[in-house]
Amino acid sequence: MRAGVWFDHRRALEALPHGVKAMRRILVTGARGLIGRHALPVLAEGRAALHAVSRDGTGPGAAMWHACDLTDPQAAADLVRDVAPSHLLHLAWTTGHGKFWSDPANLDWVAGSLALLRAFAASGGQRAVFAGSCAEYDFAAPAPWREDAPIRPHTLYGAAKDALRRVAEAFCAQQKISFAWGRVFLLAGSGEAPARLVPSLAAALSAGMPAATGPGERVLDLMDTRDAGRAFAALLASELTGPVNVATGQGVTLAALATRMATLAGRPELAAPGTLPARAGDPPALLADAARLYETGFRPRHTLDETLRDALARA
Amino acid sequence: MRAGVWFDHRRALEALPHGVKAMRRILVTGARGLIGRHALPVLAEGRAALHAVSRDGTGPGAAMWHACDLTDPQAAADLVRDVAPSHLLHLAWTTGHGKFWSDPANLDWVAGSLALLRAFAASGGQRAVFAGSCAEYDFAAPAPWREDAPIRPHTLYGAAKDALRRVAEAFCAQQKISFAWGRVFLLAGSGEAPARLVPSLAAALSAGMPAATGPGERVLDLMDTRDAGRAFAALLASELTGPVNVATGQGVTLAALATRMATLAGRPELAAPGTLPARAGDPPALLADAARLYETGFRPRHTLDETLRDALARA
Repeated sequence: MRAGVWFDHRRALEALPHGVKAMRRILVTGARGLIGRHALPVLAEGRAALHAVSRDGTGPGAAMWHACDLTDPQAAADLVRDVAPSHLLHLAWTTGHGKFWSDPANLDWVAGSLALLRAFAASGGQRAVFAGSCAEYDFAAPAPWREDAPIRPHTLYGAAKDALRRVAEAFCAQQKISFAWGRVFLLAGSGEAPARLVPSLAAALSAGMPAATGPGERVLDLMDTRDAGRAFAALLASELTGPVNVATGQGVTLAALATRMATLAGRPELAAPGTLPARAGDPPALLADAARLYETGFRPRHTLDETLRDALARA
Repeated sequence: MRAGVWFDHRRALEALPHGVKAMRRILVTGARGLIGRHALPVLAEGRAALHAVSRDGTGPGAAMWHACDLTDPQAAADLVRDVAPSHLLHLAWTTGHGKFWSDPANLDWVAGSLALLRAFAASGGQRAVFAGSCAEYDFAAPAPWREDAPIRPHTLYGAAKDALRRVAEAFCAQQKISFAWGRVFLLAGSGEAPARLVPSLAAALSAGMPAATGPGERVLDLMDTRDAGRAFAALLASELTGPVNVATGQGVTLAALATRMATLAGRPELAAPGTLPARAGDPPALLADAARLYETGFRPRHTLDETLRDALARA
């Protein structure tokens, strides 16, 4: 369903886009997160030196790891000055299922991200890609959302991401830094919080319980985290600037999702779409127009079935 | 021209707006700046304890002064925790005539302002008023600009202010902090940089040189800094939330300004409007709809003639 042309990431990583010098030294934040863990091995295949940040400075091979609390602006600036990256992939942010929507720490992440960016400019950085969110869009606007769809965050998280994007874009334009902003939609993959949609359905099915969801007609754009990692690597290696949806561009209804997952689990009778109440504020369709992302050459590699099967295997 | 009803600030300062507790302890940043120096004496007439911040901790009487570099988020947070203000008037920002439009320090001020606000919420703050700018508006939109006019900053300064407003509003809504955002238009008053419009005209005239300006038909909304200080004090004491233009709502053309100033200087023949080239990006009219500000009871007290005469006296 989502196969097609495979993205030749090795070629892309070594490309020399106009106006952007070769990737010499890459710094990845949030490198142990849902997306970062899958971006790292792709980026490691290029010729650039790969530096990665985690809070305690540990992480899997293929990168030089640094310890940094990025919400400390001075620490963020010191790190960037030491590494002097040509390319910056900034994925780190406050997490915690449910909590991050309204966490006051969103403000610290705006501040820390700006310190990171300012230091990146001061040390001669060439291209930066930051992670944004579909939570920036006006959920009342008809989907699929192109990147120029109305912006109206409904949460502190969305407002913080949107505010960061606005000032970061203005700053990068002034500093001649090539800047792209990847708006992430729904993700599924290993390492997710158990309460998130796909792991919770997998857990229910593996316990012989109904795969209950909200309104069956609700449409989601669900991307495998492995593809999200590849998408950000492709975006970093590309010349695209401005907001870019990081999504498949293909919708699946909650009904289809519950049914497919129950079928894959061998328990089709457990599919129970529409048995949970609609959540206030949820848009009828959380669906991206992914045409801009596809301009990088990226295509999703993991089918929905594969993503769901893997979730069931982990449950 | 701008007289009319006088604002009874003493009564306003002691009012108890619905949903906002009395002003018990006020913290003013940028308290020695163009606006802050005139807001302080007004606020000092109320019953609240008045705390003021300057970089070196010195300033004129009527307030308890604190030294703080507000671009250091930790220092900003420590200060707010120590003072525990019920009301916060945040005027400080990077300054420097010409330079501030593109100063990378704009990013540090976003970060520091967010740290200030987060600490304000944590210490039980009730109401905050921050200084924004007319530079947030789309200069291509027809003036006068109401607060809901299109937003499209043309400078890093404008983008930084706009970004701060967006995340600060979302945060305050969540934290039940009453929050207003005063969009400052053009100011004239003591302490201005000599290169700014009114002081440069005054300096020219006092040297017997022509009072040269850009296009004579260009319209400006020029407010006396003393009135701007009173306006922010009124705004802090009010219940108004969201963006509020801090401006007179009355336009004056560059032709009228140059002519009036030359006349007041006793050298009407030196008025030379339209003799300087238009600056790229300048809007034909930089004019506010000031109806929201007037809702506080505030009215400008200083006429344009008085503002210009004072500038001439200082030149």
